[in-house]
Amino acid sequence: MAEQFPEIKGGGSLILAWQVRNKRILMVGGGEVAAGRIVNLLNADAKVTVVSPREGLNPEVAYRIKHNQVTYIDRKFQPSDLDDPSIVMVLTAVDDPVAGSEIYKLCKEKRIPANIADVPPECDFYFGSVHRDGPLQIMVSTNGKGPKLANIVRRQIAANLPSNIGDAISQVGVLRRKLRKVAPGIEEGPKRMQWMIKVCEAWSLEDLCEMDESDMERLLGFYAPNTVPSFEDVRLKEEPGIWTFDGSFGWW
Amino acid sequence: MAEQFPEIKGGGSLILAWQVRNKRILMVGGGEVAAGRIVNLLNADAKVTVVSPREGLNPEVAYRIKHNQVTYIDRKFQPSDLDDPSIVMVLTAVDDPVAGSEIYKLCKEKRIPANIADVPPECDFYFGSVHRDGPLQIMVSTNGKGPKLANIVRRQIAANLPSNIGDAISQVGVLRRKLRKVAPGIEEGPKRMQWMIKVCEAWSLEDLCEMDESDMERLLGFYAPNTVPSFEDVRLKEEPGIWTFDGSFGWW
Repeated sequence: MAEQFPEIKGGGSLILAWQVRNKRILMVGGGEVAAGRIVNLLNADAKVTVVSPREGLNPEVAYRIKHNQVTYIDRKFQPSDLDDPSIVMVLTAVDDPVAGSEIYKLCKEKRIPANIADVPPECDFYFGSVHRDGPLQIMVSTNGKGPKLANIVRRQIAANLPSNIGDAISQVGVLRRKLRKVAPGIEEGPKRMQWMIKVCEAWSLEDLCEMDESDMERLLGFYAPNTVPSFEDVRLKEEPGIWTFDGSFGWW
Repeated sequence: MAEQFPEIKGGGSLILAWQVRNKRILMVGGGEVAAGRIVNLLNADAKVTVVSPREGLNPEVAYRIKHNQVTYIDRKFQPSDLDDPSIVMVLTAVDDPVAGSEIYKLCKEKRIPANIADVPPECDFYFGSVHRDGPLQIMVSTNGKGPKLANIVRRQIAANLPSNIGDAISQVGVLRRKLRKVAPGIEEGPKRMQWMIKVCEAWSLEDLCEMDESDMERLLGFYAPNTVPSFEDVRLKEEPGIWTFDGSFGWW
């Protein structure tokens, strides 16, 4: 009985993709570490408030402030900074560990998830090394064993991915939306999902990368009979004269 | 000025490695989706409470309950389930969207991060497709564009990784701990970090995978002069008779 279920392998992190679009995140500190964190936050469309005396600002953070990419408060942290009920997360990157601990304690009283940089026991979450290609995000964590290795693994992964995988995923997203227009019924949900899965399984990543708008239109013609042609067959259909059949067209 | 700083590419998620070891997470629902979530939670050493009437339990969830891998409450969700102040996260996977929305609202009042399965606007975070190899975790997210593609990309990444990369990372973790014993001074922190980075950059992933305990001991001998020998040089040292020098031993 047991062997049919996944074995539990403890010791990992719970890796989650947080949706912070238009949500307020407080960044205490404005140095080099803060600069890196802010990029992560802005890439996820968060509204960022930076609290740090101006003299402690790293040039990149100063640049983000100057160009209104973040809201700025020019002073040290004050407990009242946490009063804003719209704050969903707090990050600190300050040189003063006592101040960091104090902020963490206040966050825990208010149940605000927090990350005190360089103090693992005062981190509800860690950052990792993230590769980004359009809608695709790949995060590598070594669970603190080797942050540098995480970067190396991330770069190796990125080098091995098809160069336009991000575009391919965007196109699959477009195909999904088109499919929902072709077959909008709620009761068709499972069929839509199964068909999308079959397309993604039958086509190579390279095929999906190469798929263009007119390929999609032709491909969607195979949804009703619930079959998935090969990429070549979809392309061949372009020139009716050389249209051929193969085993995958069992419904024909 | 601008071009020296990373460009902001909005539209992503904030991917974070949550540290939920020994923290309480409430799972409302006990079906197939819940079964998958529970594996994620237990792999991160969370304490999981499942609330679901027994008749709705999927066999895997029933198995986890039977083997005391989770705490179980045999009934539907009640608002008082959220009163436990130790709860850091709430997940629901129930067929009743009204019940899900109600739970999400209660969580937001209490500032508890929550994920209502299949209702994106009521998710503070999404799950992704995670590859795990010991301390290494790689999470693939398509930001909702193609969950199936995320699985395909994850499998492709896993197939391309050195087969014992997890072990290599564990060993780098061991090397780090040994280094801290060899050179424990707080003031040596930056030198330790730089040297570890140099080792990880100079050695291939394959070298790190192959590194054994005695290689580590010899490698640590190069920390004081702050150099990094090649893997071959460390191995050659094993037999003093064939010990050779090359350019990388500039300090000698």
